[in-house]
Amino acid sequence: MQEPIVEFELTKEFRDRFQEALDKQDSVFIRETLTDIKPADITELLYEFTSEESKYVLNLLPVDQQAEIINDLDSDTRKKFLRIYEVDEIVILLNQLASDDAADILHELPVKEREQVLSALEPVLKSQVTELLRYEENVAGGLMAKELMKARFHWTVVQCIDEIRKQAENVSKFYTVYVVDDEDKLIGRVALQDLIISDARTIVGNICDKNIIAIQTYQESSEVAEIMKKYDLESVPVVNVHEHLVGRITIDDIVDVITEQAEEERQLMTGISEDIEEDDSVWRNTRARLPWLLIGIVGGLMNAKFMGLFEAELSRITAIAFFTPLIQATGGNVGIQSSSLVVQSLANPGYVDEGHWNRLVKVFFVALLNGFFLSVLVLGANIVLFREYQLSMVVSVALFSVVVFASFIGTITPLVLNKLGFNPALAAGPFITTLNDLLGLTIYFFIVHLLLI
Amino acid sequence: MQEPIVEFELTKEFRDRFQEALDKQDSVFIRETLTDIKPADITELLYEFTSEESKYVLNLLPVDQQAEIINDLDSDTRKKFLRIYEVDEIVILLNQLASDDAADILHELPVKEREQVLSALEPVLKSQVTELLRYEENVAGGLMAKELMKARFHWTVVQCIDEIRKQAENVSKFYTVYVVDDEDKLIGRVALQDLIISDARTIVGNICDKNIIAIQTYQESSEVAEIMKKYDLESVPVVNVHEHLVGRITIDDIVDVITEQAEEERQLMTGISEDIEEDDSVWRNTRARLPWLLIGIVGGLMNAKFMGLFEAELSRITAIAFFTPLIQATGGNVGIQSSSLVVQSLANPGYVDEGHWNRLVKVFFVALLNGFFLSVLVLGANIVLFREYQLSMVVSVALFSVVVFASFIGTITPLVLNKLGFNPALAAGPFITTLNDLLGLTIYFFIVHLLLI
Repeated sequence: MQEPIVEFELTKEFRDRFQEALDKQDSVFIRETLTDIKPADITELLYEFTSEESKYVLNLLPVDQQAEIINDLDSDTRKKFLRIYEVDEIVILLNQLASDDAADILHELPVKEREQVLSALEPVLKSQVTELLRYEENVAGGLMAKELMKARFHWTVVQCIDEIRKQAENVSKFYTVYVVDDEDKLIGRVALQDLIISDARTIVGNICDKNIIAIQTYQESSEVAEIMKKYDLESVPVVNVHEHLVGRITIDDIVDVITEQAEEERQLMTGISEDIEEDDSVWRNTRARLPWLLIGIVGGLMNAKFMGLFEAELSRITAIAFFTPLIQATGGNVGIQSSSLVVQSLANPGYVDEGHWNRLVKVFFVALLNGFFLSVLVLGANIVLFREYQLSMVVSVALFSVVVFASFIGTITPLVLNKLGFNPALAAGPFITTLNDLLGLTIYFFIVHLLLI
Repeated sequence: MQEPIVEFELTKEFRDRFQEALDKQDSVFIRETLTDIKPADITELLYEFTSEESKYVLNLLPVDQQAEIINDLDSDTRKKFLRIYEVDEIVILLNQLASDDAADILHELPVKEREQVLSALEPVLKSQVTELLRYEENVAGGLMAKELMKARFHWTVVQCIDEIRKQAENVSKFYTVYVVDDEDKLIGRVALQDLIISDARTIVGNICDKNIIAIQTYQESSEVAEIMKKYDLESVPVVNVHEHLVGRITIDDIVDVITEQAEEERQLMTGISEDIEEDDSVWRNTRARLPWLLIGIVGGLMNAKFMGLFEAELSRITAIAFFTPLIQATGGNVGIQSSSLVVQSLANPGYVDEGHWNRLVKVFFVALLNGFFLSVLVLGANIVLFREYQLSMVVSVALFSVVVFASFIGTITPLVLNKLGFNPALAAGPFITTLNDLLGLTIYFFIVHLLLI
């Protein structure tokens, strides 16, 4: 072992030194430097260079490492990068990869190129990938790999180990042997450790665990993630409608699914409409932000128009305007909090759903309590700060109502979105804030009108 | 195999039927029902019942299943639940668990009980757990389990397999044998599949992979998650400062870390200050929401006081007030978007950091573009809707400035929070919104004052 942590840190100095070597096409230096670095770190290094430079670097490495590195790239970068590759170059790379990874990369290629690459792949991989390409990317069939270790239930342990020796080259990492009947129907699984400690003449069908969970090809990836998390599984078999074993999904793919879900949720909640990163171009960054900002602007203009209706009142009692930010900000905060909690409970299914009615009753009581605290506090503060008793009273009544209404909207919106098949996290973002701003203003002026004027 | 998916769905009918059986203490029905359900599903079922009912159910099951189910419970529920257990009952349960799980549960017990339970554990587990309890829960030492499969580098494959036979009882799931020297220093690892396909007389030291990543006991769990994700590892060895192998961390623990991080981030971003769920009590829900609402209220009162300074101007030109919601909402949205992007890039380290200066220059250009689009649009809309040319001009200039300033604040705040050791996601929440509300108002009235009055 080298250092206990061989994690590589990409420094500015290193990158600049590397860029220099690239400019001089100093292949000796580059080759030497890269022998000490793991493929995942080389992937990160490549983000610093142009596609042409990256290709030059990769060509200095063995082809299996090239394939691994390209497989590690994020989808956007890879799409751009592979444009400078010829069809036959891509074929060589994909032949190094597992079926699921090869299928993912094929998905990213233009249709014409995809067909050309596919038809030139090694026969086994070609038929595996062809099958995988039939599935949507966000279902189990699109996540699974075809490579797996399979044994017939009537085999002995020693037969099984022989087969593992034969297949080991094709299946890179595995911990489980799936046991099937003569028609390829899934019967159970044997952990490698159990194979090792069992007598050589034991029948595999007798030591396999038959009470296992299998995933259907059409189940959504978020559902697969839920199941693997809940039952602490590191891999699951995937079966088709005839219960034939067709693939397996491993936990590292699921880790990616979970990370992507969290990222998507954050983007929805913060009003970013494209999958962008800080280092994307200024123009892409601007474009990804504009849609939600525009919605906010439209809401703001509607606010302005609405307040315009009360111009006479406002010019008589200017102080009415002072409290719109207070009312709107609180409505916004309450709405976001409420929807966030609903999003959370939708993401953790399993409890018996008490029904929407019970949920709303509870939200109502929480809102009453919060509304009460806040409006009493604001009443006190306003009397001290502004000495306008009547207006202070009006503000507190409005605040109380806004807290209750915003809680309601914040709870109902993600439920409705979820029902309609949208991501409920959308409701914890600028959308609900804009809605609550308008709602708050309406309630406030309605109460002003009722009590004050 | 039973059905391809033996996932259990907890229906209201099932729960009610089960409650009935509980009320009648119908142990036959309960035992029969539970034999078909996996422990992870029984865990979920228990959330529906009182602690006493749950204990009654558990006592009908084998002790290893009891332990597994209790281990699956969420920490809050378990803490409450174990209060009705005697010390010797807890000892029996913990003796069934892996060292890391036992240590986690001990962490949750009151100190006095913890000591009593610890001293009564089985000797091996006791010494393992005692060691684990020394570590904070959020570092590698607190995540790792002591149980692992270990081989000396000079052993043959057959010796190694013999040892696996002996140890297999204590280590529940493993895919890797760690190879150490005579002083217990980590040398490398052998995958089980390689052991299976190697000749029995091969020396383990010759087939082990020496270029592996090991984690130090003191590394933070988020860092461990980062490393395991990046290098696609399903388990990592943990070493102490002397490079002695002291434990292993498996990917299922890391999946939990990732999920918790995402949840914590969402709570910070949506102004919820305690780790609550929708089905916690009304009072707890109220309390968790109040702190951020209060910050919003204080901000709102400061807004009101600030607008009060311009009472004379407002009563002369009431329309000024119409546009505060527009200005503030846009400032809020821009701020949240900016901080969200910084949070995202802080969560994906690895790129060469271009330095804060480059980042700010880029943010500045994005803000200029967005600000330009929005203010031109609003100018047009305002002229059409309100026909107040001078005020429309002022609003657009203010809007432009607010977009630029809010971008700046939204970018700088998470960076500063991160530097100070806080979670930067805090900056994408109510805090930045409140700040931006005030900022927006100040800029708006400053420009009104400058250009209009």
